[in-house]
Amino acid sequence: MPEVMQMIDSEVFMAFTTYATIVTLKMMFMSPLTAYFRLTRKAFSNPEDCRSGKTAEEKKKMLRSDPDVERVRRCHLNDLENIIPFIVIGLLYSLTGPDLHTAVLHFRIFVGARFFHTLAYVVPLPQPSRGLSWIVGVVTTLSMAYRILTAVLFL
Amino acid sequence: MPEVMQMIDSEVFMAFTTYATIVTLKMMFMSPLTAYFRLTRKAFSNPEDCRSGKTAEEKKKMLRSDPDVERVRRCHLNDLENIIPFIVIGLLYSLTGPDLHTAVLHFRIFVGARFFHTLAYVVPLPQPSRGLSWIVGVVTTLSMAYRILTAVLFL
Amino acid sequence: MPEVMQMIDSEVFMAFTTYATIVTLKMMFMSPLTAYFRLTRKAFSNPEDCRSGKTAEEKKKMLRSDPDVERVRRCHLNDLENIIPFIVIGLLYSLTGPDLHTAVLHFRIFVGARFFHTLAYVVPLPQPSRGLSWIVGVVTTLSMAYRILTAVLFL
Repeated sequence: MPEVMQMIDSEVFMAFTTYATIVTLKMMFMSPLTAYFRLTRKAFSNPEDCRSGKTAEEKKKMLRSDPDVERVRRCHLNDLENIIPFIVIGLLYSLTGPDLHTAVLHFRIFVGARFFHTLAYVVPLPQPSRGLSWIVGVVTTLSMAYRILTAVLFL
Repeated sequence: MPEVMQMIDSEVFMAFTTYATIVTLKMMFMSPLTAYFRLTRKAFSNPEDCRSGKTAEEKKKMLRSDPDVERVRRCHLNDLENIIPFIVIGLLYSLTGPDLHTAVLHFRIFVGARFFHTLAYVVPLPQPSRGLSWIVGVVTTLSMAYRILTAVLFL
Repeated sequence: MPEVMQMIDSEVFMAFTTYATIVTLKMMFMSPLTAYFRLTRKAFSNPEDCRSGKTAEEKKKMLRSDPDVERVRRCHLNDLENIIPFIVIGLLYSLTGPDLHTAVLHFRIFVGARFFHTLAYVVPLPQPSRGLSWIVGVVTTLSMAYRILTAVLFL
């Protein structure tokens, strides 16, 4: 990792900053989407959230799990499991001074794959569309990790 | 993102480091809190954890979900869903050279909102206290993301 | 946090990069492991994933939770809850200019503890092996957080 100082003020780091912010905003969007499905499906986890129920009976019925809510929650958890490793590895990768075009290609493919993954999960699209978009994201992250370990390895 | 090198050694970055560490410690605290509720409620997920049970019957009874344990676990997951985006976006935001007072204000509001969110979730306080503290955190993070994208955008 | 610029190009940061990448790859490995258990145990969460079922009846039976799948998923979530704080705090800690040997010792102990934790969780090994490896990871992270707050504190 030579000359990190020059790198951090580079176009690669600016590109990483842009794509990392966009994909993090996409991940954050899953929270209001969950809230939307909870409100429309009337399916909550906390008794204090069932305020739209008029009677105690009605409130209690709202404490249930709903397939659509659970689907969005699984999609959100999958985002945490995949987008966070991308951000960690992408940040460190950006500091190893990679070629700008190679780096931007990695970021674009990953972010595109994760947007498609969310679409495939929430709609849902028939498999293997979700599975493939997940694999594309994983392979992109692994490719950056390979570059890090060959450029930096210090055990 | 000009002059990142000067920025990273700046008071903004020191403030980010302080608040990010504090809010991460708060998030980590949810694990022992979950353990506390599991032990006092005698509600475990793994058979090997039910060591306090004397008979096989008693051990098996402990493999159950408990409302208090599930509440703390939801709070912990909500932390992961909100605090991690804050750290990612806050780190990148700190590198864009924001005004010190504006930056510290963002960090303080976010960290304060998340401490209150945990309190509102675990006690629990009546809604909309939890909902509002969640929204305050989200808006703070979005405000930093807006600054990043207007200062850096490189697609 | 004086002289961050010199620090970021240092051996400490290279060591952090290496260990953070390795432990992130370990965390990512939990996804294919979950997929493996889902396929062999025929236990899925999404109707569109039950393609190996021949009849509608058979597909529906596959929509179930399985103890082995749930165990791997809990292990994955525990990784998110512990490895992400390590990466956040480890990154900031690396920028405070710690002693190289102390830093590498922290990274090695944490990464070793988490590999053992996964083994202890998935096999599973009898308690307290999993509990102890979890505590070792937490204490390592707390030790780095303590160093950050004493070196940088800016509220």
